[in-house]
Amino acid sequence: MSTRVAIIGAGPSGLAQLRAFQSAHAKGAAMPDVVCFEKQADWGGMWNYTWRTGLDEHGEPVHGSMYRYLWSNGPKECLEFADYSFDEHFGRPISSYPPREVLWDYIQGRVKKAGVRDYIRFNTAVKQVTFDPVSRQFTLTAYDYANGRSTTDTFDFVIVASGHFSTPQVPAFAGFERFSGRILHAHDFREATEFQGKDLLIVGSSYSAEDIGSQCYKYGARSITSTYRTQPMGYTWPKGWEERPLLNRVEGDIAYFADGSSKRVDAIILCTGYQHHFAFLPDELALKTGNRLWPLGLYKGVIWEHNPQLIYLGMQDLWYSFNLFDAQAWFVRDYILGRIKLPEQSEMQADSAAWREQEEGLQSTASMYEFQGRYIKHLIEHTDYPSFDIDAVNQIFLKWKTDKKRDIMGYRDKSYRSVMTGTLAVPHHTRWLQALDDSMEEYLRETAGKGDVNALRQR
Amino acid sequence: MSTRVAIIGAGPSGLAQLRAFQSAHAKGAAMPDVVCFEKQADWGGMWNYTWRTGLDEHGEPVHGSMYRYLWSNGPKECLEFADYSFDEHFGRPISSYPPREVLWDYIQGRVKKAGVRDYIRFNTAVKQVTFDPVSRQFTLTAYDYANGRSTTDTFDFVIVASGHFSTPQVPAFAGFERFSGRILHAHDFREATEFQGKDLLIVGSSYSAEDIGSQCYKYGARSITSTYRTQPMGYTWPKGWEERPLLNRVEGDIAYFADGSSKRVDAIILCTGYQHHFAFLPDELALKTGNRLWPLGLYKGVIWEHNPQLIYLGMQDLWYSFNLFDAQAWFVRDYILGRIKLPEQSEMQADSAAWREQEEGLQSTASMYEFQGRYIKHLIEHTDYPSFDIDAVNQIFLKWKTDKKRDIMGYRDKSYRSVMTGTLAVPHHTRWLQALDDSMEEYLRETAGKGDVNALRQR
Ligand SMILES: Cc1cc2nc3c(=O)[nH]c(=O)nc-3n(C[C@H](O)[C@H](O)[C@H](O)COP(=O)(O)OP(=O)(O)OC[C@H]3O[C@@H](n4cnc5c(N)ncnc54)[C@H](O)[C@@H]3O)c2cc1C
Ligand SMILES: Cc1cc2nc3c(=O)[nH]c(=O)nc-3n(C[C@H](O)[C@H](O)[C@H](O)COP(=O)(O)OP(=O)(O)OC[C@H]3O[C@@H](n4cnc5c(N)ncnc54)[C@H](O)[C@@H]3O)c2cc1C
Repeated sequence: MSTRVAIIGAGPSGLAQLRAFQSAHAKGAAMPDVVCFEKQADWGGMWNYTWRTGLDEHGEPVHGSMYRYLWSNGPKECLEFADYSFDEHFGRPISSYPPREVLWDYIQGRVKKAGVRDYIRFNTAVKQVTFDPVSRQFTLTAYDYANGRSTTDTFDFVIVASGHFSTPQVPAFAGFERFSGRILHAHDFREATEFQGKDLLIVGSSYSAEDIGSQCYKYGARSITSTYRTQPMGYTWPKGWEERPLLNRVEGDIAYFADGSSKRVDAIILCTGYQHHFAFLPDELALKTGNRLWPLGLYKGVIWEHNPQLIYLGMQDLWYSFNLFDAQAWFVRDYILGRIKLPEQSEMQADSAAWREQEEGLQSTASMYEFQGRYIKHLIEHTDYPSFDIDAVNQIFLKWKTDKKRDIMGYRDKSYRSVMTGTLAVPHHTRWLQALDDSMEEYLRETAGKGDVNALRQR
Repeated sequence: MSTRVAIIGAGPSGLAQLRAFQSAHAKGAAMPDVVCFEKQADWGGMWNYTWRTGLDEHGEPVHGSMYRYLWSNGPKECLEFADYSFDEHFGRPISSYPPREVLWDYIQGRVKKAGVRDYIRFNTAVKQVTFDPVSRQFTLTAYDYANGRSTTDTFDFVIVASGHFSTPQVPAFAGFERFSGRILHAHDFREATEFQGKDLLIVGSSYSAEDIGSQCYKYGARSITSTYRTQPMGYTWPKGWEERPLLNRVEGDIAYFADGSSKRVDAIILCTGYQHHFAFLPDELALKTGNRLWPLGLYKGVIWEHNPQLIYLGMQDLWYSFNLFDAQAWFVRDYILGRIKLPEQSEMQADSAAWREQEEGLQSTASMYEFQGRYIKHLIEHTDYPSFDIDAVNQIFLKWKTDKKRDIMGYRDKSYRSVMTGTLAVPHHTRWLQALDDSMEEYLRETAGKGDVNALRQR
C-alpha cells in the first residue's frame, strides 16, 4: 500500500505541499496517496477573502482575517515563488505591492498549472486527529459539509498547514462591558468605510495595527489613536494619527491610557495578535508557541520531534512567506519520499536548540529576516527547489524597511527588482493612497495602459 | 457506585437541573454524582452578557447572543419560577419587562440559595462525548481552560443544556463581498449606539429583527428597513421604519429587494436565526431539528429515544422559558432517580408522534403557547414541581400579544399580575423608550421610590 498523507489546509502552505509532490511526480517519483482537507469552499487560505466574521455558514470558526482594500504589506519580490514567477503569471511587469485579489490569483496560477485541485476535499473541516502508537497510524475525522457526513480515514503522515492567524488573542480591559461603540479584534475587521468620520482606538503596535490604521485613515476615519506596550511604532503619521501608551480602561466612550491621558473614541480595534490554535489535535500533538522565528519542537522547523510522522508548515513568524512555505514543503516531500533521513531524536533536538540559540541572539530587524533567509537557504540545499539569491531578497527587505520609515503612507508606491527574473516592477497607475478600488479588474485594467488586458489574461 | 450525571451548560436549563436535584436531595433523596460543565467563567448562560463576539479568550465560539440595552421581550410573569418568585428575590414588586441584568440576577438568586455552585466546573468546555455500547457509559472530554488541561470522565447520563441560540444561520446574498459597510449576524450584535445616524437594513422578521430594530431605533438609527420572506411583521412602526420583501442583492451600498425597489444602507444585520449545533456530539447522538415546538426524537421533549441515557433540555422553540426548563428538569431528575420509568422505544416514539401531530395542526398564535402550556402541565403532573395556573399564564401571553400589536414601542410599559404570588407588577419609573440606562442599579434605584434600596437588596 502506498504511503498515505493528509494535508490539513489548502492555503499557500498546503498548496506548496501539493505542488511539491506533483513536481517530483512529474519527474518520475512515486506519488503518495495524498488527501488535502480544506474547510473553506475554495483554496488560497487567508488570501481567499470572506465577508463573514465569527462563525461561518457551517458553524465553524471563520478562517479569514483579511479585509477589503488589503494590499500586500511587503514587496511581492520577497515572496515570489522560485518555480513560478509573477512574469509567468501576469505576462508583464506589475507593481511591487499588489492588492489581495491579485496575489490570490497568482497563488492559484501555479496550482492550476500543476493540476492538483482534485487532491483537495473542499468544505471539509478536520475535527480530530489521533495517533495509534501500535499501528503507528493517524486516524483523522473530518466533517464533509458538502455531503453532510462525517468521514474517518487513516494516514501515515499528517501535515498541519492550517495557518496561525485565525484564532484571535483577545484581551479584556476594564469598562469594555459598557463601552458605547463597537469593539472588535483585527480578525473581524473587514471594511474600513465603516469607520469613516469616526475616532478610532487601535490597541497594539503590530503589522495589523499599522495596516488597519492606515486603511482606516485612507478611507476617511476622523482620527486614529494607537497604543503601544513597550515602544511606539515611530512612523511619521499623517495628521490625525497619534500614538499613546497602553490602554488602561474605558469609561463610557472615554479611553484612558497608561500616562493618565484620555481620549473620546467611537470604536476600538484590538490588534493584539493571534494564537497558534489546533482544535483538532490532542494536547500532546499540538504545537505550543508564540509567534516567533524559531518555535521549539520542530526539526528543521517542520517535523514534530516527538513523532516525526506529524509535520507542521508555516508556523514561524513570517518575514518570508510563499517561498518559505515552498522550501519547507519540498523538504517535507523529500523526507516523506525517503530521500531525506532523520537523525536520532536527541540529535534533532540539539539541532533545533542551536537554531533557537541563534534566534534568541537576534537584535536588529535586519538580523531577523537574514536569519529566516539562512533557514530557507539551508532547507533548499537539501532539495531540488530552484535556488534563488536570498541575499538579494534580504536587500529588498532592507529597502522596504527604509521606504516605510521614510513614508508610511507612500511606501507602497515604490518598485523593486525580482531576484527570480530580473524584472523591475512598474509603479501602479494610481498612488496607493488614492487607489480606493482594490479589485483585480481595476488593478489590471489601467496598468495595461495601451495593451489589451484580455489578451494578456488569456496567456 | 452512585449514578454519574454530566450536565453540559450552566444556563437557565442546566441550573434548573442542578436545582431539581438539590431540591429532591433536601427532601431526603440520594444525590447522584453530578458534574456541570460550563465553558464561560460564570453562570446564567445567555443572560451572562459578554462584549465579546466571534471567538472568546480561549479561541472557543462566543456563546452569548444578548446585547446591551436588552429588556425582556415577554412579560416576566410568563417565565417566573414556581418555586422562587420575583417577590422573594426583589422583596417588592418590579415592572413586567425588566432589563437583562435584572433577570440574570433573578436566575442567580435561586441557585445561590440552593447552594449548587460547587457542582459546576467553570471555564471548562466540553469537546467530545462518546458512548460505549458495551459498558453503556459515556466518555466526556472537556478542556479546562482555568488549569490548562484536558479532562476525561465517564458518566451514566449526559444532559445537554447548551442552548440553541449561539450558532448563527448566516445566509449569503449577492454583492456581500463588496458591500461597503458592516455586515453582521444578530449573534454578533452588541451595541445599538454604533448605528446612531445610520440607515440600517435588517434581514428577517423574527423576534431578533423586531427587537434589534427597536433598540437601534431607540438609540438613534436614522432609518430601519426590515425584510420579510412570507409576510411583514405588520406592527405600526414609528417613522423611519419600513418593511420590504426579501433582499435580493446589494450593489455597493444599495440594497435591492424582491419587489424591485432599492434603498441605500450603511449596515446590514442578519436576523436569520440559529442552528441547533452540538460540536461535541457524534452525528448519531446529535439532535437535528429546526426551531420548533416539537422536535422529533425526544421522549417527553427531553429523553433521546435512541439512547435514553442522553437527555436534552430546552431544545424547543420557546414561548415559555424558565418554568418550561424547570418542568423538564424535574421530570428528568425523577427519571434519573428511578421514580419515572420509560416505556418501550416504540411506545416512546408513538407518544412523540402524537405530540408532533398536534403541533403540526397548530394554526393560531394562541394555539402555540397553549400547546406549550399543555406540555408543561403534562410534565409537572409527574413530579413535585409546584403546580401553577398555566391557563392564567396563557392569558398573559394573549395580553402581551395584543399590547404589542397596539404599540410596539410602548408594550414594555404594561404591567401584569403574577400567577405565582398574585402580585401586580408596577410600572418602571421611566417609559421604556426613554429608559436609556439598562443597568440594574438604575433600574432598582429609582423604582425604590421613597424606600431604601440597599435595605431591600440585603434581604
Ligand atoms: C491580515 C493579514 C495580512 C497578511 N498580509 C500578508 C502579506 O501582505 N504578505 C504575506 O506574505 N503574508 C501576509 N499574511 C500572512 C499569511 O497568513 C500568509 O501569507 C499565508 O496565507 C499563510 O499560509 P498558510 O497556508 O500557512 O495559512 P493560511 O493561509 O491561513 O491557510 C490555512 C488553510 O487551512 C484551512 N484550515 C484551517 N483549519 C482547518 C481545519 N480544521 N480543517 C480543514 N482546513 C482547515 C483554512 O481554511 C485555510 O484555507 C497576512 C496575514 C494576515 C492575517
Ligand atoms: C437575543 C436573545 C434574547 C432573548 N430574550 C429572551 C427573553 O426576553 N425572555 C426569555 O425567556 N428568553 C429569552 N431568550 C431565550 C434564552 O435563550 C433563554 O431564556 C435561556 O437562556 C435558555 O437557557 P439554556 O440554559 O437552555 O441555554 P443558554 O442560556 O444558552 O445556556 C447554555 C449554556 O451552555 C454553555 N455551553 C454551551 N456549549 C458548551 C460546551 N461545549 N461546554 C460547556 N458549556 C457549554 C453556555 O456557555 C451557556 O452558559 C433570548 C435569547 C436570545 C438569543
